Amino acid sequence: MIMAMAYVLINTELGKETELMKELKSIEGVKEVYFVYGVYDIIVKVEAESVEKLKEVVINKIRRIDKVRSTLTMMVIT
Amino acid sequence: MIMAMAYVLINTELGKETELMKELKSIEGVKEVYFVYGVYDIIVKVEAESVEKLKEVVINKIRRIDKVRSTLTMMVIT
Amino acid sequence: MIMAMAYVLINTELGKETELMKELKSIEGVKEVYFVYGVYDIIVKVEAESVEKLKEVVINKIRRIDKVRSTLTMMVIT
Amino acid sequence: MIMAMAYVLINTELGKETELMKELKSIEGVKEVYFVYGVYDIIVKVEAESVEKLKEVVINKIRRIDKVRSTLTMMVIT
Amino acid sequence: MIMAMAYVLINTELGKETELMKELKSIEGVKEVYFVYGVYDIIVKVEAESVEKLKEVVINKIRRIDKVRSTLTMMVIT
Amino acid sequence: MIMAMAYVLINTELGKETELMKELKSIEGVKEVYFVYGVYDIIVKVEAESVEKLKEVVINKIRRIDKVRSTLTMMVIT
Amino acid sequence: MIMAMAYVLINTELGKETELMKELKSIEGVKEVYFVYGVYDIIVKVEAESVEKLKEVVINKIRRIDKVRSTLTMMVIT
Amino acid sequence: MIMAMAYVLINTELGKETELMKELKSIEGVKEVYFVYGVYDIIVKVEAESVEKLKEVVINKIRRIDKVRSTLTMMVIT
Repeated sequence: MIMAMAYVLINTELGKETELMKELKSIEGVKEVYFVYGVYDIIVKVEAESVEKLKEVVINKIRRIDKVRSTLTMMVIT
Repeated sequence: MIMAMAYVLINTELGKETELMKELKSIEGVKEVYFVYGVYDIIVKVEAESVEKLKEVVINKIRRIDKVRSTLTMMVIT
Repeated sequence: MIMAMAYVLINTELGKETELMKELKSIEGVKEVYFVYGVYDIIVKVEAESVEKLKEVVINKIRRIDKVRSTLTMMVIT
Repeated sequence: MIMAMAYVLINTELGKETELMKELKSIEGVKEVYFVYGVYDIIVKVEAESVEKLKEVVINKIRRIDKVRSTLTMMVIT
Repeated sequence: MIMAMAYVLINTELGKETELMKELKSIEGVKEVYFVYGVYDIIVKVEAESVEKLKEVVINKIRRIDKVRSTLTMMVIT
Repeated sequence: MIMAMAYVLINTELGKETELMKELKSIEGVKEVYFVYGVYDIIVKVEAESVEKLKEVVINKIRRIDKVRSTLTMMVIT
Repeated sequence: MIMAMAYVLINTELGKETELMKELKSIEGVKEVYFVYGVYDIIVKVEAESVEKLKEVVINKIRRIDKVRSTLTMMVIT
Repeated sequence: MIMAMAYVLINTELGKETELMKELKSIEGVKEVYFVYGVYDIIVKVEAESVEKLKEVVINKIRRIDKVRSTLTMMVIT
């Protein structure tokens, strides 16, 4: 059951967009990954069974990738 | 066929969040609507058959709702 | 037991700062209220027994006050 | 025929502004390049025959230049 | 002779985008007007014979239109 | 003796810039007032004998003027 | 006696969040440290006996840690 | 005669604030330098005889210092 969901906006290392998208898609809990125009480069939808699992994905998986420069996480209010 | 997609971040009239979410969900092309914590209040995923249709939904539907105070549209790069 | 916590940064109606601080302090779950210099005017610390209760305080209490112009909610990751 | 257009705001490596402007001007599809005062350092107008070509210029040309630190792309709605 | 140039990013009254674009286009010195996706709604290019004339256009013409909610002016460095 | 100093960036009611500048200049403690290009419209330098006096000027004088829409106060670290 | 207080929002080196939180907690004057979702990664509450001491903690202690990438300091108005 | 003036907000290399302030003060045209709390770290007031000289100071002097990470320049409208 999905208990926690968040959108993560990502600024990437410039020129590493395609590689990063592949890495993001391979992470468990990452449901959608799109490249977008604007201040941020990539939008990611994350779903998890609990708030703890969500944290695990955002902090220990997504933010650990070296092509990720900065993140803005918007937690979905359910 | 989906040819154009965008995420729209919305700042709502304060206290009108629930009503606005209902209105947004009734718009054709609006696929997902979530309330989020952060600088923006609501995130909306829009899909359309063409860039013109997408514009129609964002400019003539979503931005015309009076409970919408401001929008940040991130077009998905396909 | 405290299970959910958030900091809410508030932009106030100009000139209504003192009144608003009093109203905020009277809300259950609001633990600290300070006036700050910067882009935001007031910082509020909210504690609740659950994520649902937290949402209740932020969305249905704080954001409903008419002197509140906009909010940025940062959920604490526990 | 021009089918897609965008403005790209660029933050440059500090001290590399002049060189970068020259490189930007040599990219096909880049129509105007100006140095501006404000949060961003350079504004670029890009025109392309299609949304795909536009993406090619922004992602694979402009963002690949090492003197470019970050970009904000505003797609023109035609 | 053009001596001063600026890009003005505009946030519009929601739902008044088309009317505003017409008004902007009728202002002397306004050379280009586009509707864009992102944080801002419209981008305007202004050219004038002097810094004083430029100020006149931005402050006394563009910012006086009631459909304009806020502006970000980036002066071109020539 | 000057013990506390701050710069206040102001967003004005559009079209009320000149009037507002006059009002600001008449406030005790306001030392410099300039109209600027960018995200903010006016920059104000405030000096006071104490942190309390500075607060008085920023909160009870500047922010009370109805032509002021929002402020960003940067306190000088002495 | 507490005479000066501030909240410091911190952007961390990605992947160094846990280590940084430990370091921050060991600084005298740092009263609360939380990891948050949003544009910033960590929020810190600092208390000091004087404005000078506060500056010392923010500038010479917190900002000197190499895992700190950038800070936004909001001084509490007492 | 002063013909052009600007405020430059600076983000510094963390931990290099004091050195940078000294360097900034030694630049011709730099009239005031203060350390501030907020999103930016230092505010600089620049005065020059012409718009060209101003550009020279901002682009070729201030932005060339390696301790300067990014700048936001607000040109004063005279």
